[in-house]
Amino acid sequence: MKQRTAEDLAEPAYRQGLLALLGVLAYGELVGFLTIAQEAGLAPSSRDKVTFAGVATQEFAHYQRLAERIEALGADPHQTMAPFTRAVDDWHRRATPTDWSEALMKVYAGNSIANDFYREVSDLVDPETRQLMREVLEDSGQVEFAAGELRRAIGADDRLGSRLALWGRRLIGEALSQAQRVAADNDDLMGLLVDDGSGYGLDLGDWMRMFTRLTDAHTARMEALGLSA
Amino acid sequence: MKQRTAEDLAEPAYRQGLLALLGVLAYGELVGFLTIAQEAGLAPSSRDKVTFAGVATQEFAHYQRLAERIEALGADPHQTMAPFTRAVDDWHRRATPTDWSEALMKVYAGNSIANDFYREVSDLVDPETRQLMREVLEDSGQVEFAAGELRRAIGADDRLGSRLALWGRRLIGEALSQAQRVAADNDDLMGLLVDDGSGYGLDLGDWMRMFTRLTDAHTARMEALGLSA
Repeated sequence: MKQRTAEDLAEPAYRQGLLALLGVLAYGELVGFLTIAQEAGLAPSSRDKVTFAGVATQEFAHYQRLAERIEALGADPHQTMAPFTRAVDDWHRRATPTDWSEALMKVYAGNSIANDFYREVSDLVDPETRQLMREVLEDSGQVEFAAGELRRAIGADDRLGSRLALWGRRLIGEALSQAQRVAADNDDLMGLLVDDGSGYGLDLGDWMRMFTRLTDAHTARMEALGLSA
Repeated sequence: MKQRTAEDLAEPAYRQGLLALLGVLAYGELVGFLTIAQEAGLAPSSRDKVTFAGVATQEFAHYQRLAERIEALGADPHQTMAPFTRAVDDWHRRATPTDWSEALMKVYAGNSIANDFYREVSDLVDPETRQLMREVLEDSGQVEFAAGELRRAIGADDRLGSRLALWGRRLIGEALSQAQRVAADNDDLMGLLVDDGSGYGLDLGDWMRMFTRLTDAHTARMEALGLSA
């Protein structure tokens, strides 16, 4: 697979694909902010509310950095995000936690799989964008926080484990289905991700293997909590 | 009325009253963050979502500064906020907007009256705390933003004005009733705010005149939108 360089930014097809990727990622961070802040309302204590609020504000800072990159590429962040708002909103609607433990699992399993996905596809972009993506995808301790809280909660309640295992399966199913639909529905994005003969992007075998890796990582995360995936 | 100085921090009654004030203000900022972030979900566009998300993150930054001040005074922020969580949560529950225009009005009228209240009582604390309170109460443009959006919305929809006037009356009524109940229920806070013979704090006449000023300012804000208060 050929590597993208800064010179490729002059190529319209790459630019459009890159903007699409940044658009869906930026909108994901924005709505991630909104939903984590909303889910903080489920937190049992002011301490947990503060932790989640801190996670949310980091997502907003990530959104801001991505919006700046979109602007630096000469595009409007809102127009760039527009094609993806429905799919991202849909994912959150289908994955709305009903209590604090489900909210924690959404951070632990849902945010992790989204981060894994974007980290994989950051290999397909130019070095400066890749650097930015890796920085905004860096875990800021929330996965560890959620894991600790989940372990405690599961240890204290026998039936919680099987409910959360079910919820985790739903999260991964929705996430993979939305990710594939978003890519399939957007030619620019698909052009960036999957090799159409240009020598850039993943071939379809790599594309599928990537989803296998995402699923394996999810399974390992669930097992780390003593849950079956 | 005598002015508080840094030396008063050594006096247990003042300290307790001050901590109570900082506790209710800090929890208010924390829940302000949560609810504004939640209300951003009602925003019609990603642009408005971003604006509201920016407002919310500022509230969280304010929370953090207040929590630091509480810690600097040797207390735990969560224990300090605990006596006030029910009243603040109650206010937000009773004042939950059902659409975007009500959310804007809650920022425009609700946040403003809370800020006016805290700005008034910042006269009753030592200079360093007063400085911090004034900084966190500084409007960061959200009131102007909300006013502009509300003017546009009211101009475009004849019936919206009377619905929002009603909503504004509900907001002020709930706010004043909660503020008075919080103070009345908390001896430490009441001791700080109202003069019990120490020469510090407002006498009951000043206390009531302060609420009159808050109400007048609210009326002026509603009239600035062409609404009756």
